[in-house]
Amino acid sequence: IQPTVLVHGGSGNIADIKLPKIRLGVKRAARIGHDVLQRTGSVLDAVEQAVNSLEEDINFNAGYGSALTYESQVEMDAAIMHGAQLEAGCVSLVRDIIHPITLARRIMENTRHRYLAGEGAMRIAAAEGFDILPKGALVTTASLESLAKFKKILNKTGGSNSYGSPGTVGAVAVDACGNVAAATSIGGITGKLPGRIGDSPVLGAGTYADNESGAVSATGHGESIMRFNVVSRVLALVHHSNCTIQQAAAQVLGEMTKRFNETAGIIAIDHRGQLGIYFTSQRMSWAYQRGAELHCGVDPDEDEFENVI
Amino acid sequence: IQPTVLVHGGSGNIADIKLPKIRLGVKRAARIGHDVLQRTGSVLDAVEQAVNSLEEDINFNAGYGSALTYESQVEMDAAIMHGAQLEAGCVSLVRDIIHPITLARRIMENTRHRYLAGEGAMRIAAAEGFDILPKGALVTTASLESLAKFKKILNKTGGSNSYGSPGTVGAVAVDACGNVAAATSIGGITGKLPGRIGDSPVLGAGTYADNESGAVSATGHGESIMRFNVVSRVLALVHHSNCTIQQAAAQVLGEMTKRFNETAGIIAIDHRGQLGIYFTSQRMSWAYQRGAELHCGVDPDEDEFENVI
Repeated sequence: IQPTVLVHGGSGNIADIKLPKIRLGVKRAARIGHDVLQRTGSVLDAVEQAVNSLEEDINFNAGYGSALTYESQVEMDAAIMHGAQLEAGCVSLVRDIIHPITLARRIMENTRHRYLAGEGAMRIAAAEGFDILPKGALVTTASLESLAKFKKILNKTGGSNSYGSPGTVGAVAVDACGNVAAATSIGGITGKLPGRIGDSPVLGAGTYADNESGAVSATGHGESIMRFNVVSRVLALVHHSNCTIQQAAAQVLGEMTKRFNETAGIIAIDHRGQLGIYFTSQRMSWAYQRGAELHCGVDPDEDEFENVI
Repeated sequence: IQPTVLVHGGSGNIADIKLPKIRLGVKRAARIGHDVLQRTGSVLDAVEQAVNSLEEDINFNAGYGSALTYESQVEMDAAIMHGAQLEAGCVSLVRDIIHPITLARRIMENTRHRYLAGEGAMRIAAAEGFDILPKGALVTTASLESLAKFKKILNKTGGSNSYGSPGTVGAVAVDACGNVAAATSIGGITGKLPGRIGDSPVLGAGTYADNESGAVSATGHGESIMRFNVVSRVLALVHHSNCTIQQAAAQVLGEMTKRFNETAGIIAIDHRGQLGIYFTSQRMSWAYQRGAELHCGVDPDEDEFENVI
């Protein structure tokens, strides 16, 4: 198996004007993850640091630049999981920190729990020495504009629960021994009610990793991904049938979209190192590095390739 | 298919002295659920009201009588799901209401989200006209004693993350057409850190229902059930292989206990109406009514039976 780090920067209707920055962001994250994997040999470090770079990037809906609640607050979800021991850490409703994915990892490693939310999670952040940013530090002009637009549409139509907030970020990785890991971090859906939890921190919905099947990170309409248990269904198909992880992703997302009329996207690596990249949305940004090859895409069937060594 | 309601009152080391009240509680809940199913024809009403009766019962770790956080607070999780449309509602970190499962249902039915936690969930409770109880109203002498015992053990041994807090409650139901539903409600684990979320509200971990496979509610060590994605694995086995839901439950819980050295229990009904009742813990209280037959058990292989019409 050739060590690989594959990332996504969210699915949805990504505007053409944003594409250059989005491409740059996912490519950088894949390279950072791959470098870390080469250096430390840890798939967990690789997915964490790939996601960290996207959390810092204003162009994605995670960390800095997160989508806002109806009350203009940032409330973030994240989960990280290692496929060898099925170790995992999850957080919800965290605020004022730039790296929720790292907080999820600390909860996994340093507490007797695996999922903490709200004030309880923020206490661990403080105890672990996280920089607690001033209130509002993660809010951007773009996220405020998206919220204003959402409110206008809500007032006109009385409801639009899938108003675009593309930009969830996620990463999956595999090492030479077949160890896999997954990580997902998200600001949520623009205009969400305070306290709303999406699919990302829900193991088996938006994030999961198991050396016996593979690692998956999902993006898209959180409520639908959660109800359909998308990531669990993909890994169960790989485990119980003979299909590839790409076929499994296509089948499950096809069923979900047919059933709920909502879209989603998936990045996946199975335990043999095969990749799955699939989305039912108009676009999903993704990139991976494997050896010297850096691949990237945004539109269906796109696969831009460059040599980076 | 014969309409059936199956409930559990939690797995763990249930003391002999508690057994009469525990048996009474689960039998009453199964009967209430079955009566409701007969009367309304709704599997969702059936699991909700069966769980309601256990939430009101001081002898179970849900609603009144919930296990306490390290800071003596009640913070409850719950999830409810209907297998026909895969509709679901989930809550975490709710307090001062007797029926978290009903709040989960209201979130499913009356909001654009499916999972709300903390203050955001409490706002929906207030808006939906829930009785908000005085602070501390759900705390019992027994739950305070359990917490005191937990703290003593923690001080002596430096850690005991699986100190018994049996008494999660859950219900699954099937109607004559093969519609299934599942519901789980829990106070959590005694001495948990504030903000801790367990498996119960995590769809695919502690709760799930799908007419194409079945409905399952789990109980036991929440962190392990979440990491192993127990309920998803059980339903995937039923869906992809030829085993019964009982065999699937036994296989998955056996694997989980082997892997994490923690115990769990499951109640399940598959889409053909077959039942699954299995636990790796010392005991799990359960009861079901099907027609005039009321069955109940606590110890392995126990199946006490009476005619209730």
